[in-house]
Amino acid sequence: MEYRAGLEGVTAAETSLSLIDGEKGELLFRGRPAGDLVRDYEFEEAAYFLWYGKSPNANESKDFKEVFRRNRDLPPYIKTIIDELPENMGMMDVLRTAVSAMSVDGEWPPTVDQALGLTAVIPTILAYRYRKIKGLPFVAPNDDLAHAANFLYMLTGECPKSPHVRALNAYLVLTMEHGLSASTFSARVITSTQADLYSAVTGAIGAMKGPLHGGAPSGVIDMLNEIGTKENVETWIRNALEQGTRLMGFGHRVYKTKDPRAVALSEVTKELSGKDDWLDLAVEVERTAIRLLEEYKPGRRLFTNVEFYAAAVLRAVELPKDLYTPTFTSSRVVGWTAHALEQAANNRIFRPKAAYIGPK
Amino acid sequence: MEYRAGLEGVTAAETSLSLIDGEKGELLFRGRPAGDLVRDYEFEEAAYFLWYGKSPNANESKDFKEVFRRNRDLPPYIKTIIDELPENMGMMDVLRTAVSAMSVDGEWPPTVDQALGLTAVIPTILAYRYRKIKGLPFVAPNDDLAHAANFLYMLTGECPKSPHVRALNAYLVLTMEHGLSASTFSARVITSTQADLYSAVTGAIGAMKGPLHGGAPSGVIDMLNEIGTKENVETWIRNALEQGTRLMGFGHRVYKTKDPRAVALSEVTKELSGKDDWLDLAVEVERTAIRLLEEYKPGRRLFTNVEFYAAAVLRAVELPKDLYTPTFTSSRVVGWTAHALEQAANNRIFRPKAAYIGPK
Repeated sequence: MEYRAGLEGVTAAETSLSLIDGEKGELLFRGRPAGDLVRDYEFEEAAYFLWYGKSPNANESKDFKEVFRRNRDLPPYIKTIIDELPENMGMMDVLRTAVSAMSVDGEWPPTVDQALGLTAVIPTILAYRYRKIKGLPFVAPNDDLAHAANFLYMLTGECPKSPHVRALNAYLVLTMEHGLSASTFSARVITSTQADLYSAVTGAIGAMKGPLHGGAPSGVIDMLNEIGTKENVETWIRNALEQGTRLMGFGHRVYKTKDPRAVALSEVTKELSGKDDWLDLAVEVERTAIRLLEEYKPGRRLFTNVEFYAAAVLRAVELPKDLYTPTFTSSRVVGWTAHALEQAANNRIFRPKAAYIGPK
Repeated sequence: MEYRAGLEGVTAAETSLSLIDGEKGELLFRGRPAGDLVRDYEFEEAAYFLWYGKSPNANESKDFKEVFRRNRDLPPYIKTIIDELPENMGMMDVLRTAVSAMSVDGEWPPTVDQALGLTAVIPTILAYRYRKIKGLPFVAPNDDLAHAANFLYMLTGECPKSPHVRALNAYLVLTMEHGLSASTFSARVITSTQADLYSAVTGAIGAMKGPLHGGAPSGVIDMLNEIGTKENVETWIRNALEQGTRLMGFGHRVYKTKDPRAVALSEVTKELSGKDDWLDLAVEVERTAIRLLEEYKPGRRLFTNVEFYAAAVLRAVELPKDLYTPTFTSSRVVGWTAHALEQAANNRIFRPKAAYIGPK
């Protein structure tokens, strides 16, 4: 079989978790459009749907949220370990280390309980470290708040506004799962050795850290900051396209039309805009960029991708920029663990071939 | 393209690091038989050869060993973190966490300096934790000893015997690299996102932890202990084969003849045997098993694999059983990092497809 770098176009697993149709711009989670889930589900319910493959009824939903709440607290030794890590260590490195350190019940096969435990505690790890580095006291999880709201609460110490909670919830639900991205693929390869779920998630966090994978939203922010004002949009973009600079937040390896996650997030941002100059700027940049991309690169079909509106949403809910990739991680862990559960249920160890090109 | 579970038979990377010929029973590291390296190289020199693709001259060898020595010490915060981890946490979980915590200079692209730093410090992590759990004081690295000897020294606090050092050195050199095993493949996938080397190695340690990957030598020990005496060998093996029990340490997914690493290690064990009843038992088990496997499973070509003689060597050098997989890790990290360097030099992010089999 012909060698394809990066396994492009090669099928590496079977999955019931998501179907991506790049031509139609469709993303289905277990058969349902991801955009619908945003409308119907809070984060915990969407995770339930991905892990169990069915919608929770009212009681199941209530119970599941309660279990999430019970799993939010950091064990004291994890706090100590986080405090020991050098101050200049990046947040993804901190998260990877803390998750690795939590592997005490690392039994095979992985379970939904373990997946939920990790998913519930990751925001607490992030908020704990974030406030520590800022010299602020730890804000314990708030039992009155669901997952997304509680994350914002632990970061700021204040009850977040409803539109912010809805926007962050939408972002987290939409980014939970997206097929065999490099991080998810790592999680499946690691799981295939019958290693525990903590090992799989630790490896996936490492992959997510790489700028080719999880780092794009920050680039969008930088670009919008550089553009600065609505008046500057067309000149700036024309200039960029003429100099061959890549526009951040446009084009996707898979989607040849609008990224369905960008569409769903742009709906959410409408609720936040009007009073927000920065969001208005983002909308103007999107409109102009799509028009000019078609002018400068006709037929290339470069549309807004999820990172563009992710940046808009994450900034609108006032999340600090160094938490963008970690926050993406806090949702994608649902997909990683769902893939690990799926891999474990019908496992075969990954052991591809390498083509030897060295001296004989 | 047809879906193959575990990517069996699919080429996922190009490499100059090793060539495995399962039919001939050949394993070449950068064009040279692995068995020859054992004869010519100490661990540090073999690592140099894999990382740089050339043999070190006398000066380079001396300098490289000196850099290894300088990189053995544990930063104080890593000791604190190891001490904080729950006592019942497995050694591979401890190692994964400690390596993750060392990621402070995690720049892209990965470098030989980083690879060497990790490779040099892993034995210290293992020895530190091992003695802590046993209630023994830490034994600092010994500057008079090279890598393999120093590892045994840090575990026991005593200068190891030369045959033990040679045997462990041989084991470490032979197991440094073996193509795209699941752990090495994880390291390449993680590196492909431009994540740092610590992330890649952390993920690979997670994969190595899985019993389908790194856990077999302990199974061989259990089997030999159960057999107990030379007189019992034939009866025990016949019984096992008739009941369909899998013999540990025989047969390999790739090698259809003697595993060349087993051949090289069996040479080394000759030096250790004679006075060692247990090694004599291993030799007797090998001889009998190969004869009876041909009788019970004719044509299946099941021969001794590396785990069989790995178990013999590791036990002969008096390594505790719960350090077998971590010790394997301490050598394979050379291959992981060599693959990460190779991936980074000619990178394309891994992003295979998944075949959707869920509801529409």
